[in-house]
Amino acid sequence: MTKFFEIGKPTPRLDAIEQVTGKAQYLPDLKFPNMLYGAISRSKVAHGRIHNIDTHKAERVPGVKAVITSSDFSTARVGFFMEMANKECLVSDRVRFIGDDIAAIAAETQESAEEACSLIEVDLEPLPSVFDPEEALKENAPLIHEDSPGNIAGEIHKEFGDVAAGFAASDQVFESTYRTNAVAHCCLETRGALAIVDAHGRLTIWSSTQIPHVLREILSMTLNLPVGKIRVRKEYVGGGFGSRQSSDPNDIICALLAKKTKRPVRLIKSRFEEFTTDRARYPMIMTLKTGMSVDGHIRARQVNILTDAGAYHDQGIMITSHALGRISNCYRVPCAKLDAKVVFTNKVYGGAFRGYGNPQITFAIESQMDEIAEQLNIDPLDLRLKNACHEGDLTVSGARITSCGLTESLTRGASAANWKNKGLRKQKRGIGMACFVHSGGGSAGAHGGNFSSAFIKVEYDGSVDLMTGVPDAGQGSSTALALIAAEVIGIPVANVRVHSGDTGIVPVALGARGSRETFLGGNAVKLAAEDARHQLYTRAAAILDTTVDKLASAHGKIFIKSQPSKFITVAQAASKTMHEYAAAFPMGVPVIASACYTDPISEMADRTTGYGNLCPTYAFGTQVAEVEVDTDTGQVTVLHVIAAQDVGKAINPMAIEGQLEGSISQGIGFALTEQIIWENGVVRNPKLSAYNLPTPLDHSKVTSILIETNDPAGPFGAKGIGEAGLIPTAGAIANAIYDAVGVRIRELPITADKVLDALEKNQQQ
Amino acid sequence: MTKFFEIGKPTPRLDAIEQVTGKAQYLPDLKFPNMLYGAISRSKVAHGRIHNIDTHKAERVPGVKAVITSSDFSTARVGFFMEMANKECLVSDRVRFIGDDIAAIAAETQESAEEACSLIEVDLEPLPSVFDPEEALKENAPLIHEDSPGNIAGEIHKEFGDVAAGFAASDQVFESTYRTNAVAHCCLETRGALAIVDAHGRLTIWSSTQIPHVLREILSMTLNLPVGKIRVRKEYVGGGFGSRQSSDPNDIICALLAKKTKRPVRLIKSRFEEFTTDRARYPMIMTLKTGMSVDGHIRARQVNILTDAGAYHDQGIMITSHALGRISNCYRVPCAKLDAKVVFTNKVYGGAFRGYGNPQITFAIESQMDEIAEQLNIDPLDLRLKNACHEGDLTVSGARITSCGLTESLTRGASAANWKNKGLRKQKRGIGMACFVHSGGGSAGAHGGNFSSAFIKVEYDGSVDLMTGVPDAGQGSSTALALIAAEVIGIPVANVRVHSGDTGIVPVALGARGSRETFLGGNAVKLAAEDARHQLYTRAAAILDTTVDKLASAHGKIFIKSQPSKFITVAQAASKTMHEYAAAFPMGVPVIASACYTDPISEMADRTTGYGNLCPTYAFGTQVAEVEVDTDTGQVTVLHVIAAQDVGKAINPMAIEGQLEGSISQGIGFALTEQIIWENGVVRNPKLSAYNLPTPLDHSKVTSILIETNDPAGPFGAKGIGEAGLIPTAGAIANAIYDAVGVRIRELPITADKVLDALEKNQQQ
Repeated sequence: MTKFFEIGKPTPRLDAIEQVTGKAQYLPDLKFPNMLYGAISRSKVAHGRIHNIDTHKAERVPGVKAVITSSDFSTARVGFFMEMANKECLVSDRVRFIGDDIAAIAAETQESAEEACSLIEVDLEPLPSVFDPEEALKENAPLIHEDSPGNIAGEIHKEFGDVAAGFAASDQVFESTYRTNAVAHCCLETRGALAIVDAHGRLTIWSSTQIPHVLREILSMTLNLPVGKIRVRKEYVGGGFGSRQSSDPNDIICALLAKKTKRPVRLIKSRFEEFTTDRARYPMIMTLKTGMSVDGHIRARQVNILTDAGAYHDQGIMITSHALGRISNCYRVPCAKLDAKVVFTNKVYGGAFRGYGNPQITFAIESQMDEIAEQLNIDPLDLRLKNACHEGDLTVSGARITSCGLTESLTRGASAANWKNKGLRKQKRGIGMACFVHSGGGSAGAHGGNFSSAFIKVEYDGSVDLMTGVPDAGQGSSTALALIAAEVIGIPVANVRVHSGDTGIVPVALGARGSRETFLGGNAVKLAAEDARHQLYTRAAAILDTTVDKLASAHGKIFIKSQPSKFITVAQAASKTMHEYAAAFPMGVPVIASACYTDPISEMADRTTGYGNLCPTYAFGTQVAEVEVDTDTGQVTVLHVIAAQDVGKAINPMAIEGQLEGSISQGIGFALTEQIIWENGVVRNPKLSAYNLPTPLDHSKVTSILIETNDPAGPFGAKGIGEAGLIPTAGAIANAIYDAVGVRIRELPITADKVLDALEKNQQQ
Repeated sequence: MTKFFEIGKPTPRLDAIEQVTGKAQYLPDLKFPNMLYGAISRSKVAHGRIHNIDTHKAERVPGVKAVITSSDFSTARVGFFMEMANKECLVSDRVRFIGDDIAAIAAETQESAEEACSLIEVDLEPLPSVFDPEEALKENAPLIHEDSPGNIAGEIHKEFGDVAAGFAASDQVFESTYRTNAVAHCCLETRGALAIVDAHGRLTIWSSTQIPHVLREILSMTLNLPVGKIRVRKEYVGGGFGSRQSSDPNDIICALLAKKTKRPVRLIKSRFEEFTTDRARYPMIMTLKTGMSVDGHIRARQVNILTDAGAYHDQGIMITSHALGRISNCYRVPCAKLDAKVVFTNKVYGGAFRGYGNPQITFAIESQMDEIAEQLNIDPLDLRLKNACHEGDLTVSGARITSCGLTESLTRGASAANWKNKGLRKQKRGIGMACFVHSGGGSAGAHGGNFSSAFIKVEYDGSVDLMTGVPDAGQGSSTALALIAAEVIGIPVANVRVHSGDTGIVPVALGARGSRETFLGGNAVKLAAEDARHQLYTRAAAILDTTVDKLASAHGKIFIKSQPSKFITVAQAASKTMHEYAAAFPMGVPVIASACYTDPISEMADRTTGYGNLCPTYAFGTQVAEVEVDTDTGQVTVLHVIAAQDVGKAINPMAIEGQLEGSISQGIGFALTEQIIWENGVVRNPKLSAYNLPTPLDHSKVTSILIETNDPAGPFGAKGIGEAGLIPTAGAIANAIYDAVGVRIRELPITADKVLDALEKNQQQ
């Protein structure tokens, strides 16, 4: 087995000191001389036709330098899939949710900007609204978009294999409906942007983004500027979780204000604005139907989904369509079918959120697995083991499983939880498990390719600068990439400096999304580092009078494998001069390299059928949750979550454990407490204190079990796991609650009220 | 002949708008939150022993955060050749010139810092001083450095061929002594630095430097920090001319104040400090002896130089030793000898200044050429043509002349000046010419190599980002490099963005010095761009169903050479996706490349003999000056300078003409008006209004003649000419004065007083 020197060691983030001492600079820390402050005037009604926007009073507020409305720019639309984007940056004639963007102001102070906002006068004719997706489908429902009859944003009908035949061949068919609600990302840093337009008309925009290069594309399309005239930069980003992987009117409005005023403009959302206007996790109503053989094998599976898109398009159709892979790739399924509608309602539009639809459908799948197990009288662990995917599988939807830790995650997770003795738990305590499959390295999806790229330079002291397009949005990717470069070149990780988040300097990557950073970025860094290493070894071989193939490196030394005492340092190789005798600064020709990595595995789904191997690798995992239910209050306490996670190879175990702990906390919130509560289109809990985000006191004990399956395409075998940890948590908790007190709640969040109601119903039966 | 699309076109600087509208940010525009202001307390005596430095009063000034003296850091020394550096950043026990650095302060305001400076109390025992280099050599002269007996900083004795035999074989021997004085660089921006030390102990320093990577090496040695922990950055730099190609106590003190205070510190020299403490051009006393055949061929040449180093080492020995190449490489010389002493005096130390000693020695050589011509009764033009070097020559000092425009510069310069009719000029007007040779692409010199490197990325709109270590210090190198990238890839130059001046990001280059930027940087950019072009052509060939060798590109299009109407755009090739059908953002695998260029030609001088081909190419040129002399006042007016310059290939003729015009203005100042005037070690003219820098009103008409010799190793045939234009100007003017009024002044500057004195002496004879 290969010995590693740097990867695999628990490694604190390279920027941990900056982060914990408050020295790390976030967007709100950025100030420029002459900078203006922006604010957005927003709709107070959920649906209405605009007859006039009067900005005169706003313009007269002292300090106001610009007031813009939709008439200031042509058809700028916001979204992710731009060909369907139907959200105007600033609305022209219609508002569609409370908070919709009407006008924007740039002023000398934040106070002036906000005062001016309050003086924007909108002559508006209210229209009937609809907030519930099922209501929105009804024939007489108010129409939100003229070009979307029936309020249907999109429909999906896809089938692999013959589902009708599969159900016919089943011994028993199970069907239940599961629901999830809207959940907010609650990044510690709210969304912001700072834009400067220079004398050449070139835009530089700092954004709290997860996707600098993709945002540049979006801005290019929206602002009709070539990408070369746009430079997207980011400072530290206080979390993204998917919320910062799309564009937002905030970025574009900020750019337009800067263009109009010819001054730097900063525009930051308040927490209230973030809760009421930023994308949330798509609520879904999922009716899952599974046909089983009497001995517990899945014969057919079908899901019908109704997704609440909110007022506009973003990624609802793509996110919903991904459910098909989730129902067919984790367990062996001979046929699978997805029918879905994505429906507009008069609420803030949904968007990507860690897991990209997977937390919703996995809650349904894994709840139903336990329901099936009970009915078939099979242990839930055994049922899962019986159906689990294995390495080498080609699934019915076209996924090629090249490495798979699912079975091992089940057995090791169950073992750690003492699963076989679960019946011995004391009253009102229960355990439940849930599995999942997710991409472990992005997908060909949206960009017609799945790739990353890197520049590397080795400095004369043997340290390395790494320029990567992969943005660290708080997830620690820069440290993982540094570890990979350090391992390849043979230097301590502390000697790698990672530069990212500035599209003017770093080569393209597809952003921090889809768990792709380590897999794609890591492979690109590995290629570039291998090129640099070859250059170093060539120099070292000449000095050590050997050949490149006989060399290895570690701890900053390049040595002969068979005689480790014969070495030169990486620094010596990096600074080797052409000439023999001393000069003032023997700087030497530098060692530099560049590399692109294109995942050669994933493919776009077949346009007609949706069939294809969409991801270069798949990450599997099992979580086992232990809960205690207070039957007087309905309150559920999560005592312990065991996360047995297929990580391919743990580049940085400390970071993975951090990711799992953070994910599980988010999963507990999704499972038990978090939801955006609307009443007639008004968010009723638009602040952290009312939203019930789990606090550190609500965290459960987490035990991480890292399963190394050594993916053949992953860098050193690694897979991405940035989203993974959140996906099965809700299912595991729901199953544990059932185990504890016998109530099956099929709608998230499983609030104390729902548990209490269910307990009461159980007692009445 | 090759057709070029971008290079060769007169191209305004890409950043011209920023520069002329005041948007360009220079170091004094940089401010950081919490930033402190620095000041340096300096010696008021020219030579003295320090018994004590009392900082107590200074420390008590409100706002003062740090006071440092030499005891705060160990043996930090400043210089260029660090093994001989003997200037302490802050002196420990001795001051050696008025202005020597004693203590430094960081305070909340500039005023507090300066007040504290004035309260530093130095218990100092004055020592006898010496200001004149000839006096310093005398036996009883005060000794400035204990380890430099006789005040000798260095001696040089080198000979190629047999000079004694050469003189013996000469028909006539000419010997005269020429003197030059100290000249200040007078950059529009004074020297400054801004330093931040982060939580990892890593230093980021912005400096008004010409040599980010070399400064990083100097700081590394001085501060005992690995280069990887130092990031040197620069903003726009308001000129360098050699003054910013070494370190200065300012940079190091600024770094130390930042380290001590843990806050950002900015330290900027005042104009007074710049005049009194910053390096100036080394004054030289040059006795030049030339043996001639009666028919006007040089038989032998010997020079004896006394260089005034000032109080400390910097580059005096190297600069003086370069004189050998100047006396042997321009004209064919069968033997040559240099004997030189570099001598310490109690004045500010000298340093590099555009031409690196060449303006001094060329003044001597070219003055003497005219003196010889007169004595031998040969036209000065003919004498030069008779002796001129030619392509293919191997000179006695080892220089291989691979391209040479000297003869053409003489004939075209003379023709443009109507040389053959020079006798017809009206009274008191005269013309004179001077030639020179200089490096056209740096030299192996100080770094044990002569190289540059570059990263390049082609963006999806067909524009390019170029990361180069070559710093633009106001000379326009970034535009030249952009032109080279644009030409190779076939895109408009406006679509190239150049990033430089940040060692954290850009790969190593050796700085803006020695006229190396276009030659070395250009070759590195060319290699990287060719790699990127190959990637683009490979994609284009597949689309156009042809092969790479059949393609060409220009104006943003890649086309089949034989059918130019069959093309795709560079943007299309750059963004080509892997997949056929539309995706959200068809971003495609990026085209990126990296390249190092090592000049394969230049070599380090032989350690014993000094023999070698020190430069990869040599630039030659002739200037013809026309002057009018006011015989009542002695005032010389330069009416016209014709600069016939071997440029190899004009990448950007507009920039070259600008360089020539600026150089010639500096040459006129050197020739006629500029000098730092000391009296007992005190600078008597430490301000622009007293220093007699030529103003725009003093500029002469300049006619530039660009001679394209297509150097075989230059990028597209180009040579560097950043220093060239200044070198022969003084000689041409001195010769023109002689032509006008018959007085031969052998000491620069040729002030009105000197002319008047000489005229009076002539009349008395």
